[in-house]
This record gives sequence, structure tokens and C-alpha cells, in this order.
Amino acid sequence: MGHPDLRSKIRDIPDFPRPGIVFKDIMPLLADAESLEAAVDDLAEWARPLDVDYVVGAEARGFILGSALAYKLGSGFVCARKPGKLPYLTVGAKYALEYGFDALEMHVDALPKGARVLVHDDLLATGGTAKAKIELVEQLGAEVVGLAFVVELTFLGGRDKLYPYRVHSLISYDS
Amino acid sequence: MGHPDLRSKIRDIPDFPRPGIVFKDIMPLLADAESLEAAVDDLAEWARPLDVDYVVGAEARGFILGSALAYKLGSGFVCARKPGKLPYLTVGAKYALEYGFDALEMHVDALPKGARVLVHDDLLATGGTAKAKIELVEQLGAEVVGLAFVVELTFLGGRDKLYPYRVHSLISYDS
Repeated sequence: MGHPDLRSKIRDIPDFPRPGIVFKDIMPLLADAESLEAAVDDLAEWARPLDVDYVVGAEARGFILGSALAYKLGSGFVCARKPGKLPYLTVGAKYALEYGFDALEMHVDALPKGARVLVHDDLLATGGTAKAKIELVEQLGAEVVGLAFVVELTFLGGRDKLYPYRVHSLISYDS
Repeated sequence: MGHPDLRSKIRDIPDFPRPGIVFKDIMPLLADAESLEAAVDDLAEWARPLDVDYVVGAEARGFILGSALAYKLGSGFVCARKPGKLPYLTVGAKYALEYGFDALEMHVDALPKGARVLVHDDLLATGGTAKAKIELVEQLGAEVVGLAFVVELTFLGGRDKLYPYRVHSLISYDS
């Protein structure tokens, strides 16, 4: 089977969400059935040897491939959400924004102690939100065995900040 | 294979998001690998004869099983999002809240004309947001061939409001 060119399915959106930022829009990739399948299968192939019990997906774009990946791996799926969105008791972790802070939360019973967890999100940029997700998982006594992304902006150095965790991305941009 | 009891994996959360509402929390179902698999497979079995080109998932919980369902069906996945979240040009549809209105948006090029679309969300309550999703799909000239939900609150009559569209839910509550 020919592997579709996933990079060609990412659309550059200049000045989103604010002037000077070029946003990498993954919607065309998700909407293309062959690319969606190839993306899930590639991430699953990378993650298979990690023996993943749960995939944690971060609100909101991390829910998309995260759940398909959990389905493919035969794992459970857990949501990391913005404050106030989860209905039950939660733990939280803050991360820095350009100005101020935001946070992510998980249910206190979302993961059993010792569970092997793959963290998924659409984008690895500076690594700040990824570190918050790791902190959440570890607060519950579970173990992050890897982090998988769709797009990585390598020039922002997020992968270095996540060392020594295992990191994989489908598509990376050097500039 | 024994089919897991999906209903037992739904957690009642009293007074969320506000006093008097009993929220149906699907997180325990998603976190259980067998239940996640059974849920996706059940929805896919129902949807298979509908010959679905695209699954549309609504922000944010509709992204979760929606993308896994698209993967399973060999369809593309499209997001319906809250205003301002999508980076490209959008179409919108409003729906009524208890007080005032909210809206959902899709990219103007999210669906080709004539595409066969399955709409997915976690919850069918009054059917108001489901009607907005149908309106979005039809604005783009595509066809809604069915609507699939995890939880249906039958006592709120949403299914009647969606007639004659085909509706399926995994778990329904009569009261």
C-alpha cells in the first residue's frame, strides 16, 4: 500500500491564532480517510512496543487521534481537560502561557497506579503543555512510557525539554 | 467474546454542570479498553450499511469516539467546533441554550458536496445541538445519513425532533 504524503495534508494558516504565528492545520489530514488511517497506524506501530495501558489525550485536538490510537492499541482512553470541564474530582497541573498560566486536569481515578501511559497531543511546540500532562499522569502514580504527536516544531526545542522521555512525531518542521 | 456491560461504565454525577442536573460521565467507559472497543465496534456495525464518507464529531467529547469510528469505518473525520477555534474560513449554525444561544462552526471546505456524513456526539438530549450539526453539514451541500450517540436521554424527546434522520445510541435512559 502506498503511504500517503501526510505532510502535504497539513495546511499553513498565517496569523492564527494571532499575528506572526503560522498555524499548522491538521484538519485536511484528518478528513482524508487514507491519511487518517496512515497516521493512526504509524503512531500505533511506534507505540506498540511500549506496552501501553492507557492513552491520555489533551483537550481538544489531542482527543481526536488519541482515542483512535487507544482503539488500535487495545488500550483505554483518558482525557486531560481544561479546568471545570471534567465532572468528577480532579487533579491539576499548571503551565505557562506567553502571559500568565493555564492548566489541565484529570479525574483523580483516571489511571491506576503503575499504569503505562502514552501521552498524545496534536502539536509539540515548546513542550510546556506536554510537561503538564506528564505531571498529571505522575501525580496519579502512573508512568509515562512515551509521548506521541502529529506535528513537531523542532526549532522550538520541545523534545529537548522532554528528555529522557521517549518522543515521536509524524511530521516535523525545522523552521 | 463477551460484550462488556457498557451501561455499568457510565457514572452519574449529581448537580453537574449545575444543581438539579445528573450528568452522565462516559469517562469510565472510555478508560476501559474492552468497553472502548465494544462501543466503537457497535457504532461502526450500525453505521456500516450507511456507506459513510465522513464522520463529523462535535466539540469536544464528540471528537473522542468520532475519530475512532471514522478510523474503523475507513472514513475521513471532520470537526464541528465552537466559534473561533477553527483556523480557516468557516460556516456556522446557532442553537438555543437555556438562556441565549451558542454556535458550532465547520471549515467551508470540510466536506465535498454530496458526501455521505455520519454525525457523532456523546449525548442526545433535546436534540438542539444535533440539529445545528445537521444544518452545518447541509450548508456545505453534504448529506446526513445518520446520527450516532453514546448516551440518549429518551425522556427529553431528542429523537423525535430529529425525525426522519436515522438515529442510533449505545445506551438510553428513560428517566
